[in-house]
Amino acid sequence: MTPTAGSAADGRKQIYRGRVVTLNLETVTLPNGATIELEVIRHQGAAAAVPLTDDGNVLLISQYRHAAGGYIYEIPAGKIDPGEEPIACAAREVEEEIGRRASSIAPMLSFYTTPGFTDEVIHLFLATGLTPGTQSLEHDEVLEVVEMPLEQAMRHIADGTIRDAKTIIGLQSAYLARGPRRP
Amino acid sequence: MTPTAGSAADGRKQIYRGRVVTLNLETVTLPNGATIELEVIRHQGAAAAVPLTDDGNVLLISQYRHAAGGYIYEIPAGKIDPGEEPIACAAREVEEEIGRRASSIAPMLSFYTTPGFTDEVIHLFLATGLTPGTQSLEHDEVLEVVEMPLEQAMRHIADGTIRDAKTIIGLQSAYLARGPRRP
Repeated sequence: MTPTAGSAADGRKQIYRGRVVTLNLETVTLPNGATIELEVIRHQGAAAAVPLTDDGNVLLISQYRHAAGGYIYEIPAGKIDPGEEPIACAAREVEEEIGRRASSIAPMLSFYTTPGFTDEVIHLFLATGLTPGTQSLEHDEVLEVVEMPLEQAMRHIADGTIRDAKTIIGLQSAYLARGPRRP
Repeated sequence: MTPTAGSAADGRKQIYRGRVVTLNLETVTLPNGATIELEVIRHQGAAAAVPLTDDGNVLLISQYRHAAGGYIYEIPAGKIDPGEEPIACAAREVEEEIGRRASSIAPMLSFYTTPGFTDEVIHLFLATGLTPGTQSLEHDEVLEVVEMPLEQAMRHIADGTIRDAKTIIGLQSAYLARGPRRP
């Protein structure tokens, strides 16, 4: 049999294909034998980095996010371009968003942001050895760079000021890797 | 002027309304004056809990997730029902997914899962004082309960076995709150 409409062959019906997300209805047979239809947001993946200075400060951005209703604190991050390695994407976003070059970009973790409805993976890195670079924002990026001690950022997780998942994971991971605060 | 087609009045054009997600194209004027159109996934929000035993073990689920391509480790979590309080949702999911009742459900954090394209917020709790309850799975939930020491779960974050964002945040937060491992 020859597949006809494309989507029928693999149980995927494309509802919308956009700039950032693709929404499919996908027919899936689960390991328990049940066949269900799932709404799945297909995403190309992203990379993010925790920029940590030699003094133990982190460089965050306070970015306007429409979906979050205002400005939120984040680490630099962005979508992976076609063919781009995650580590190259992370280094690029550090320079574009906070205007620093990192002499070291070390892999930390990769994780699913919200696997109930999307395949988006974020690859997380630690960026150190920071030197001045050139900030270069897109027309739809509205943000300010904010530098603070890692310990202060940890307190801002606890008090609810920092409430972006990748940023919380990145800061907690950096803090746990470094051990208790240094003198 | 009278709004005509509904969506025009508030700059929202609904592309799809599903069981889990609603996809809109939303016209937004940013603080820098630029007007852009964003793909926004509107979501009702979710609650999750880290179930921690008196012995310092966590109860995770190994759940089949189509979007993640197989089984992944997660903490119990689920969508908030209309009118439901997040804390009630978390307690409900702990009983339904792992078959335990929690005598204490304490708020930990709330966070945006991936604010570049969705308003989904997950409210995270710590569930302790666990006693036997009744597991009750939906037909589309395929999972097994896995108990392990919190320290082992932390190692599984580092080695890439645990790769779900809410689960990483929950485990790291529980570990940081409890302090270094006890004897």
